[in-house]
Amino acid sequence: MGVHRTVYAGEIGEALAGREVTVAGWVHRRRDHGGLIFIDLRDRSGIVQVVVTPERAEAFAAAERLRLEYVVRVRGTVRLRPPGMANPDLSTGTVEVEAAEIHVYAESRTPPFLPQESAEGVDELVRLRYRYIDLRRPELQAHFRMRDHVIRAMRDFFAAEGFWEVETPALARSTPEGARDFLVPSRLQPGHFYALPQSPQIFKQLLMVAGFDRYYQIVKAFRDEDLRADRQPEFTQLDVEMSFMSRDEILELMERMIRTVFRTTLGTDPGPMPRMTYAEAMRLYGSDKPDLRAGPPLVDLTAASRELGWSLLREAPAVSGVRIPDWHPSRRELDAWVERARALGLGGLVWILREGDGWRSSAGKWLGEDGMATLGTVAGLRPGDGLLVAAGPEAEVLAAAGSLRVEAAQALGRLEEGWRFLWVTDFPMFEWSQEEQRLTAMHHPFTMPKEADWERLESDPLACRAEAYDVVLNGVELASGSLRIYDPGLQRRIFAILGLGDQEIEEKFGFLVRAFQYGAPPHGGIAFGLDRLVMLMVGARTIREVIAFPKTASGTDPLMEAPAPVDPRQLRELGLTLIRDRGRA
Amino acid sequence: MGVHRTVYAGEIGEALAGREVTVAGWVHRRRDHGGLIFIDLRDRSGIVQVVVTPERAEAFAAAERLRLEYVVRVRGTVRLRPPGMANPDLSTGTVEVEAAEIHVYAESRTPPFLPQESAEGVDELVRLRYRYIDLRRPELQAHFRMRDHVIRAMRDFFAAEGFWEVETPALARSTPEGARDFLVPSRLQPGHFYALPQSPQIFKQLLMVAGFDRYYQIVKAFRDEDLRADRQPEFTQLDVEMSFMSRDEILELMERMIRTVFRTTLGTDPGPMPRMTYAEAMRLYGSDKPDLRAGPPLVDLTAASRELGWSLLREAPAVSGVRIPDWHPSRRELDAWVERARALGLGGLVWILREGDGWRSSAGKWLGEDGMATLGTVAGLRPGDGLLVAAGPEAEVLAAAGSLRVEAAQALGRLEEGWRFLWVTDFPMFEWSQEEQRLTAMHHPFTMPKEADWERLESDPLACRAEAYDVVLNGVELASGSLRIYDPGLQRRIFAILGLGDQEIEEKFGFLVRAFQYGAPPHGGIAFGLDRLVMLMVGARTIREVIAFPKTASGTDPLMEAPAPVDPRQLRELGLTLIRDRGRA
Repeated sequence: MGVHRTVYAGEIGEALAGREVTVAGWVHRRRDHGGLIFIDLRDRSGIVQVVVTPERAEAFAAAERLRLEYVVRVRGTVRLRPPGMANPDLSTGTVEVEAAEIHVYAESRTPPFLPQESAEGVDELVRLRYRYIDLRRPELQAHFRMRDHVIRAMRDFFAAEGFWEVETPALARSTPEGARDFLVPSRLQPGHFYALPQSPQIFKQLLMVAGFDRYYQIVKAFRDEDLRADRQPEFTQLDVEMSFMSRDEILELMERMIRTVFRTTLGTDPGPMPRMTYAEAMRLYGSDKPDLRAGPPLVDLTAASRELGWSLLREAPAVSGVRIPDWHPSRRELDAWVERARALGLGGLVWILREGDGWRSSAGKWLGEDGMATLGTVAGLRPGDGLLVAAGPEAEVLAAAGSLRVEAAQALGRLEEGWRFLWVTDFPMFEWSQEEQRLTAMHHPFTMPKEADWERLESDPLACRAEAYDVVLNGVELASGSLRIYDPGLQRRIFAILGLGDQEIEEKFGFLVRAFQYGAPPHGGIAFGLDRLVMLMVGARTIREVIAFPKTASGTDPLMEAPAPVDPRQLRELGLTLIRDRGRA
Repeated sequence: MGVHRTVYAGEIGEALAGREVTVAGWVHRRRDHGGLIFIDLRDRSGIVQVVVTPERAEAFAAAERLRLEYVVRVRGTVRLRPPGMANPDLSTGTVEVEAAEIHVYAESRTPPFLPQESAEGVDELVRLRYRYIDLRRPELQAHFRMRDHVIRAMRDFFAAEGFWEVETPALARSTPEGARDFLVPSRLQPGHFYALPQSPQIFKQLLMVAGFDRYYQIVKAFRDEDLRADRQPEFTQLDVEMSFMSRDEILELMERMIRTVFRTTLGTDPGPMPRMTYAEAMRLYGSDKPDLRAGPPLVDLTAASRELGWSLLREAPAVSGVRIPDWHPSRRELDAWVERARALGLGGLVWILREGDGWRSSAGKWLGEDGMATLGTVAGLRPGDGLLVAAGPEAEVLAAAGSLRVEAAQALGRLEEGWRFLWVTDFPMFEWSQEEQRLTAMHHPFTMPKEADWERLESDPLACRAEAYDVVLNGVELASGSLRIYDPGLQRRIFAILGLGDQEIEEKFGFLVRAFQYGAPPHGGIAFGLDRLVMLMVGARTIREVIAFPKTASGTDPLMEAPAPVDPRQLRELGLTLIRDRGRA
């Protein structure tokens, strides 16, 4: 049958002029013009134009039968296109292949949509059901090329730094904390279940206890959550753990990794990553994942408000301002922001505009010229600037003002270009769960509390900070990590604060507590959300564009039609029955 | 708390003499001698000797409290050991660290077994329950270092050859052919189940239909089988698929990959890989995975036996001989081989020895001098050689003789050294399932039949060969692959021969058949068993020695105690109930 291919379509250039080549791929376009047939032949590397002349009768007859998305092989001679006929949109646009022979490997029915045309308007369910056609789009394939390059750059980095890639089990044990597990019934032990891991957290800590020293893995993790907008039941983590390193050494190494990956794959260095404590991030940006592209930080107007005559601000526990430089909103826009603030849970929103030498405000009547000037001056308003002022309980005010800051920058198209990375550190160790009416671990119960707070763990747990750190990129949480507790005594104190009894500890964490009694080194680690990182790097709008076979919001794979019912015999083997079948079996 | 480490233990050499270092790791040995305390400090890289003198009172007091497996940090000065005190067993044996300060990170209870001592005699369940201690053994850690290197060499190769690493789903659909699936109940769609993939076979073929051209992945696969000796419910594959390549191009590329990996990681080139058809392999070695280290191939004695006076051989459908050069067995050994042959399903076994100019045989009485000479001469026996002769139905005889050939070489310690790779090609397309009383696909139903056999697919299916190929290493099947069908019409013929009706095809393979109607390229691939490859490369006896957290034969992880019972509420959410609970809910 002859050789399938001697060269990729996208690699054919003027250097091959006069040479015979064989290319193979999909019919991307076909047009008949001046008695000739022109075919754009597409493969992973690009597109090349094939021209078929009637003199080559057999090839011409074959070409006449070709339709879009047929799979063909073309043997022919590369030649320069006639003067004026070059196509600057194609990397191969100055040449074409004059066909001597055309072989059709496979025909194609008319696809439900064409990879040659925009995906806009194509129903996403149809795109997923015919994913193999959607994935033919050159722009989508570019995402997977980038994903491959990103992963490769990471692996090269970790290998050079002495990390071992070690695989951890997918069939693990149900973990008591965190999201819901996917369960896998055991047939050999009916009534018993494995769980798919939400992360390899415990395994990687055990590898440190085993002296593996430096571990990484790019690995699937699973969460059976009610799927929100951009979640997937299975997702991919870059998972890292290392021993005998300080927090700063870990942060520096991971920062170097990220910068190396960006340089290698995008040719750009995002630069040193600033650090900010959780407390600072909340104070300055009202968020634990500040988007540094969204203009200046929030302005604390609480002290300034104490001077005001207007009790609503004067007596508010917290007052926070979002300064918007060079802002000239319409009345309708201003009303919309007040509406939005209500939706964010604020009682209301005051706006102040500095117009020339004067001030204008939704609360001008109560603030007076002096009040507007006081707040505007503290907020650093220059002529033409505007200010949104939120007042109320501190947590709510900061969160809402933080959202308004980012939304205003988005609405005004003022998000700065570029990659604004940030470390957020020193997260609270505990948080109060309203739902469970008890303290829970903010990161996870193995997180090391900051040494300065060890004394007050029991007396003032909510004031204690953890050696936990996040990587934030353009307002998106990209990674989360911490130093871990390696002292069994300290671990027991944390469990006690979390209200776990001895039996509960043994049941839930017995194996880990036991492991730590046999010599655990100081260690820490981090996990990056790989899908999200690649999504940001390629500028995709959802992680579904960087996952080859994603699932819908209900967890369905419309292509394979999974999940699906199974033979009741399979369930019986597992010692299980469907609840709706109860009594019928 | 100071820096944890400035250098790995195993990297301390004479070049550092006189320098201050900080090392961290586990107390591997401790001995008191001449008023000094000597500690062997172990980390992933190796072991260094620490010497503590009473002059350093604080360090000495700390050292006195050290027990095996404590985790410590030692700051001290590197110095050359006194003349005659070097330890040639250690890479760091010419130096030692004189401790100035010792910090204890973590104490250790007395472990149930010691990584310093042989694992012989330690119960495997105990080893697995305390896996983090077992994994501290330097020889076990070396396996994981090698596994990391092997994987890295593979990835480098595939990246250089333009393959993209693409992830395929773990939550997939139950596949109708093959082994039992692990099921994962869906909570959002109660009564519906995902299945963990037995391989990414279908996904990788869809990636080819999508034009991804060259795909690879190192990925977990799952099979819910009754676990035999050396199986694991989850195992790792190197999975590869490529388009527009001929079978020979695929074989050459994969051969180059394997040789590159061996050169990179072991520094040895296993050389070109011979090829043999399935038919040849069965005829010459009685096996589809011949061990080329086990001496000469089988000798076909069927024709020669037709001349014999002894009806038992003369009338046997097949007679096969195992020649054993330079063999001088005792009577007891000979009897044992006859026993073994019976266990292998043969009615009996004839042995013939060429002793000097004469012959001796268990069937001398019936064969006579002439008969012995006929068989011995055809088998090429030289003085001192022996021959085992099996007779009976062809398939049984070849299989048994094939086993005897390998077992004899093993028993005599005559397996040749080295890496004997082999391609076995042209497997049968179909085989007859006694159990199901129907034809089944030997490889899988998407395997391309050899073009020469397309005509007789329906008329003589069992004579048809497939474009399927295996990699065999030292008698172990290491990889399996094939060209795939890309013509929907040919695929339908195969399904029909397998007895699948239209509805069954639609239910089981609808999405794949549909995909192939939209332009599938010629493609093929292969999957390597990674655990097994690494096991052979490091010389381990079981794959459990190259898997960080393996499971027992009953699928149990004794460390995490998985699988485990779960809260009945979790099951109710999934719409499931345990059969033993029926009626109680």
